[in-house]
Amino acid sequence: MINKLVIFGVGLIGGSLALALREANYCKTVVGCSRNIQNLDKAVELGVIDSYSLDPVEAVKGADMILLAVPMGAMASVLASIHGHLEPGAVVTDAGSAKGSVVLAAKSVFGTIPDYFVPAHPIAGREKSGVEAAIVDLYVDHKVIVTPLPETSAEAELKVTEMWQAAGAKVESMDVETHDQVLAATSHLPHVVAYSLVDTLSKSDASDAIFQYAAGGFRDFTRIASSDPTMWRDICLENRDAILTSLEELQENLQTLHEQISSSDSDGIMKTFTHAKSVRDAYMKNQS
Amino acid sequence: MINKLVIFGVGLIGGSLALALREANYCKTVVGCSRNIQNLDKAVELGVIDSYSLDPVEAVKGADMILLAVPMGAMASVLASIHGHLEPGAVVTDAGSAKGSVVLAAKSVFGTIPDYFVPAHPIAGREKSGVEAAIVDLYVDHKVIVTPLPETSAEAELKVTEMWQAAGAKVESMDVETHDQVLAATSHLPHVVAYSLVDTLSKSDASDAIFQYAAGGFRDFTRIASSDPTMWRDICLENRDAILTSLEELQENLQTLHEQISSSDSDGIMKTFTHAKSVRDAYMKNQS
Repeated sequence: MINKLVIFGVGLIGGSLALALREANYCKTVVGCSRNIQNLDKAVELGVIDSYSLDPVEAVKGADMILLAVPMGAMASVLASIHGHLEPGAVVTDAGSAKGSVVLAAKSVFGTIPDYFVPAHPIAGREKSGVEAAIVDLYVDHKVIVTPLPETSAEAELKVTEMWQAAGAKVESMDVETHDQVLAATSHLPHVVAYSLVDTLSKSDASDAIFQYAAGGFRDFTRIASSDPTMWRDICLENRDAILTSLEELQENLQTLHEQISSSDSDGIMKTFTHAKSVRDAYMKNQS
Repeated sequence: MINKLVIFGVGLIGGSLALALREANYCKTVVGCSRNIQNLDKAVELGVIDSYSLDPVEAVKGADMILLAVPMGAMASVLASIHGHLEPGAVVTDAGSAKGSVVLAAKSVFGTIPDYFVPAHPIAGREKSGVEAAIVDLYVDHKVIVTPLPETSAEAELKVTEMWQAAGAKVESMDVETHDQVLAATSHLPHVVAYSLVDTLSKSDASDAIFQYAAGGFRDFTRIASSDPTMWRDICLENRDAILTSLEELQENLQTLHEQISSSDSDGIMKTFTHAKSVRDAYMKNQS
């Protein structure tokens, strides 16, 4: 149970958690905090939060759980604004898509990692964003990865785990580096490639005809290129090293395929395609 | 109206056309021809074809329309098997995903392009293949691109156009080179990239964790990596030059993004992502 939850950045991610915890009666009070009054008014109107404060110090008074659901570039400044003002026993967690950069932000603000700091990442989203897009069941059966540090107390980790479980999520634990590598490969890299493919085709000589004749496979393949550019730009900056590693592996693989196609290496192409299909089919089987 | 349609290769593509034309009463007789008796028996059983012949010369006797729906690597040998045995006025068309290579095959067999030869490409498919996957409405509201050559007679082109229209398709005309370039960009390249991405991730150190945590965006992005490897290997071989051109353009674009991410070039990344999103959103708007 949480007494007072403070959410910095009441959008899709923070708002959906608030809705779920209120529905589950897991939380006495939910308080929003940001600099956007209009958005906070809307969040109260929609029944997502009970009230709000524009002052971070005021907001965290009496709070036992603080969630940072702001863009990743804003994590450090929010942490700095509440540093020294937290109640004893209060837990701080976040919802950023990359964890290494949040840990760096925490280190830069606190000097060392406080035992009450629990980096986490809910793997859920919608194409829409903002508090109007918040839904009560966004996290049901979705994974939330917590990435506790050696400094993190078991008690703080448990509180964050139980909070996400109360919202219906399946919580798993992973170290920061593995998280960032896995997310770079499965989520960040596909987004970069989808944006790059659409950008490439739009610059082609036959661009008009290309988009006129693109069919179903293309639609699915490029769906993620309709995602929010600001968010994905930030992710590229915040998880840079892991994304570059994954991207380089893909670039090498594409270069090998280029050589195989170029030399009509039928067996080489077939081997790659067959292997990929079997891996992808096995993945889908495990999902169902 | 068609009197006798002969389909070489009675699978998803040829079988679905047969079903649609029979349903529309557009065709008096549909005869299948291949070397696979079991498959042809199945096609008769399913009511896809009226009868079959294992002998190409026998099959095309009295036929006014011949469809080649065999793998692209088999086009030349089928054309050679019927060369000199066609009825006067008979039209020959195909359903291959690349058109330049079919034209080359026809030239190699006939010396010059006959006026009754109409290369075409129905842009439709399912994840399943084979005659059991054939459905009557596969082509309804789907595009079929015909790529007539200077040698092709207007009459032959019209017959092929009307046949596909009778199956519910929207028929459009395009030159061979544009077709191959457009399909390379919108279909062939995305398949190559999807196979390559899955292959790359399967070889990563964190491969197990990667496939365990891959979520919705990944599923859509890699769906086409579950396609038939043999078919896509053939397409890579048959549309090699256009695919390589598209692939090289993508490789350059990815390299630019690599440099932008590597140097934390926030504006550069943002420009690419924003442009791609706007192009993709405009594409989806035109689709609906």
